[in-house]
Amino acid sequence: MPELAQAESLDFDLIIIGGGSGNSIIGRDLSHLTIALIDDGEHFGGTCLNAGCIPTKMFVHVADVAADALRSDGLGLRVPTAQVDWAAIRDRVFGRIDQLSEAGFRNRDQKIPNVTVFRERFHFVDQHELVGASGVRLRAPRIVIAAGSRPRPLPAAEGVRNPAIHDSDSIMRIEQLPASMVIVGGGAVAAEFAHVFSAYGVQVTQVVRAENALDRLDSDIAERFTELARARWRVVTGASVASIDEDLRITLDSGERFSTDLVLSAIGRIPNSDTLGLGDAGFDVHSDGRLVVDAEQRALAGGTPVDGIYGLGDVSSEWQLKHVANHEARVVKHNLLQPHDLIGGDPGPIPAAIFSSPQVAYFGLTEAEAPDAVVATRAYGTTAWGWALEDTTSFCKLVVDGETGMILGAHLIGPEASILIQVLVFAASHGIPVTGLARSMYWPHPAASEVVENALLDAEKLVVQKRHAEQINGGEKP
Amino acid sequence: MPELAQAESLDFDLIIIGGGSGNSIIGRDLSHLTIALIDDGEHFGGTCLNAGCIPTKMFVHVADVAADALRSDGLGLRVPTAQVDWAAIRDRVFGRIDQLSEAGFRNRDQKIPNVTVFRERFHFVDQHELVGASGVRLRAPRIVIAAGSRPRPLPAAEGVRNPAIHDSDSIMRIEQLPASMVIVGGGAVAAEFAHVFSAYGVQVTQVVRAENALDRLDSDIAERFTELARARWRVVTGASVASIDEDLRITLDSGERFSTDLVLSAIGRIPNSDTLGLGDAGFDVHSDGRLVVDAEQRALAGGTPVDGIYGLGDVSSEWQLKHVANHEARVVKHNLLQPHDLIGGDPGPIPAAIFSSPQVAYFGLTEAEAPDAVVATRAYGTTAWGWALEDTTSFCKLVVDGETGMILGAHLIGPEASILIQVLVFAASHGIPVTGLARSMYWPHPAASEVVENALLDAEKLVVQKRHAEQINGGEKP
Repeated sequence: MPELAQAESLDFDLIIIGGGSGNSIIGRDLSHLTIALIDDGEHFGGTCLNAGCIPTKMFVHVADVAADALRSDGLGLRVPTAQVDWAAIRDRVFGRIDQLSEAGFRNRDQKIPNVTVFRERFHFVDQHELVGASGVRLRAPRIVIAAGSRPRPLPAAEGVRNPAIHDSDSIMRIEQLPASMVIVGGGAVAAEFAHVFSAYGVQVTQVVRAENALDRLDSDIAERFTELARARWRVVTGASVASIDEDLRITLDSGERFSTDLVLSAIGRIPNSDTLGLGDAGFDVHSDGRLVVDAEQRALAGGTPVDGIYGLGDVSSEWQLKHVANHEARVVKHNLLQPHDLIGGDPGPIPAAIFSSPQVAYFGLTEAEAPDAVVATRAYGTTAWGWALEDTTSFCKLVVDGETGMILGAHLIGPEASILIQVLVFAASHGIPVTGLARSMYWPHPAASEVVENALLDAEKLVVQKRHAEQINGGEKP
Repeated sequence: MPELAQAESLDFDLIIIGGGSGNSIIGRDLSHLTIALIDDGEHFGGTCLNAGCIPTKMFVHVADVAADALRSDGLGLRVPTAQVDWAAIRDRVFGRIDQLSEAGFRNRDQKIPNVTVFRERFHFVDQHELVGASGVRLRAPRIVIAAGSRPRPLPAAEGVRNPAIHDSDSIMRIEQLPASMVIVGGGAVAAEFAHVFSAYGVQVTQVVRAENALDRLDSDIAERFTELARARWRVVTGASVASIDEDLRITLDSGERFSTDLVLSAIGRIPNSDTLGLGDAGFDVHSDGRLVVDAEQRALAGGTPVDGIYGLGDVSSEWQLKHVANHEARVVKHNLLQPHDLIGGDPGPIPAAIFSSPQVAYFGLTEAEAPDAVVATRAYGTTAWGWALEDTTSFCKLVVDGETGMILGAHLIGPEASILIQVLVFAASHGIPVTGLARSMYWPHPAASEVVENALLDAEKLVVQKRHAEQINGGEKP
């Protein structure tokens, strides 16, 4: 970054706000543009790389190995409890991640001549101009707003001074494992960290506002997940944290009180639109603060697309998912380069995976959201691989349109759910109905995928039965 | 089974030879037929259930857990070496399997009035008549030959009397683990058992005739597998067993000599066509002994289908795979019930999975078999999940028609290869080219399936480049 005089004003062809998915737009095909890249994060490169998908999955893999070993008793193995070297685990993760972050920064800052990187906070002063904390002003006809999101602070912890109150960013870099931990929240982030830290030997208590953890998912999945979580850590449901004092004594709204060594807040994320001053600059924002964009990812102001301004990722998307942000980045890149041939929209239903133990993966409608659909639920335990695992709790649930046979929703809980779902994503994205699908290809026996094959066969049967019943009913009508 | 007078002759509507995939044909829709079901196996129900897919995968899962724990050191976990309780592992497997076998027998023998089970060896006396070891004769206008296969005996062990010389049937029921074991063979069965027993702590030596283990697969896969196997057990390649003496002193054709505590022969399987006397009864047999069938699974005699006689599974198929036998059983069932509307043929390419460590899965052409194809190879280690696993050895290789973009072959080695391949089977079976495929759907980040997504993108690029180059070359031609 060049030295800049205070209040210097710089013009670029393109400003990209965010070093994560926005940054991925930069490439040779943009080498004709002068680009300002803004990333004010402590670590360059966005949430996925530094504090999200990537490091959490490295922690999860270690937890999976430890948890599998713990569960091995019934199999005829006696694996003594793993000794967990937290510092080694953490340093393995960040030894790699921080290098990648640093290399990503150097690449953009030093190796690409048309890119200037700014490592400070900016806010909009008008729709094509931003001012930084140092006073520098940046102007461009095209701006990509990909500023991401940040962990939502825990209201009960506001003003409480204790360094053992963490969010999902800071928790991964703690000095040592606590003996006990309270995780506040019932979503994916809470589910993953509860798995990780309980597998590492921490006494975890999860405080969930809803009736079940993963309450926004299909209720069978949420119930099963909560039941299995309870076998590994304490889950207090229907509860909120009323207060936390500086010694980490926690009071729930039920009146229950307990102490803990560490608090992890995992109650969701808020879009980084407020600090950008998007609303003040006239951009439309949703009630939750997200920038409003249209199907072509164009930022709206007064309901109308603002010329050259795009949004993508957590700052604008209702899906806080890296694969969605990546897709949006590809859309934005195309639309930046070919503004007279805009593209947009999703290639198909949006899957999500939760890398807890068990894994969960899903897309589309839940059973409750599709009351007219047919629903097929197939247990892993009915397949050979499920037998091998001695699995009695995992399943694949399909929500299918009884008329068309289209998969409206898929919900898996169990080993490798994050991979098993892909065939279903494929079928739903290509508009291929369940009727005939399982038998249209071979499924290697006895792979885990047979649970999907059998769920498809079950769903097909239900669709055929429903059609048959409707023909009969139709025929009986006067 | 009813008591039968010597040389009694019985007529049935249908004879099914084989309690495995053939047995699966029986159901309500055949309740109008009198059926003789022949299974002369020690355990009723065929190879997959009793000595193949199902029990081996139960052993493999335990081995996976033990091997993962052993590999965990670099992750920051210290998992002490698992104590392996062989008797507990074995009894867990056969406590379940033998019950299933027994229940399967009782179901057919006692609960289905139109089925009579015969537990003795039979051979054909003419194309519609069989005679059993007890002298009983069975006749039927329709016969399903699904007699399966059995382990090929090791020539060097012929006549050697030592109960520690095993095949893949007997090895699973041994009393206790040996300290050392020689596994003869380089195929899937050898690869799986070498993983299992080395993970259980046995000193394994694998003797492979070819240059690499899994030598029939794509050479990159075979080489990588062999290299990784060598890190876990001894692999002697380019070698055959010249002799074994009664104290299990082994001499290789190279002259190398060593002793072992147990020998496992895993040099392939031979079809159970010889004991049935198929050739003598006039049926066509391949040079390897398999019954010749046409695309509709009809047995041939003199090149012509024999009315009402079908073959399926290992006795006739060049694929010794349960999912192929299951498909053939569905074809045969349809053709039995609707002889004037015959169906047949494969729904798509035939995948196979090898549940060793690493896993291997593949279908279609190898790179060597498709010299004109474009080939994309993508390492797991280039994806987020690969990072989490610290994986440096696993990959997904696609062999793709450069003109049409169709997947001609797919070859995976690494964790969950047996599941990851399914999306590729889907695409190939539905005739969906790689061009546009990866971007036609979402792939949840950071799931293991991203290695397939990226391999598809790589292949797509190569296809586009090839088309582009051919356009240029085509344009330059006079």
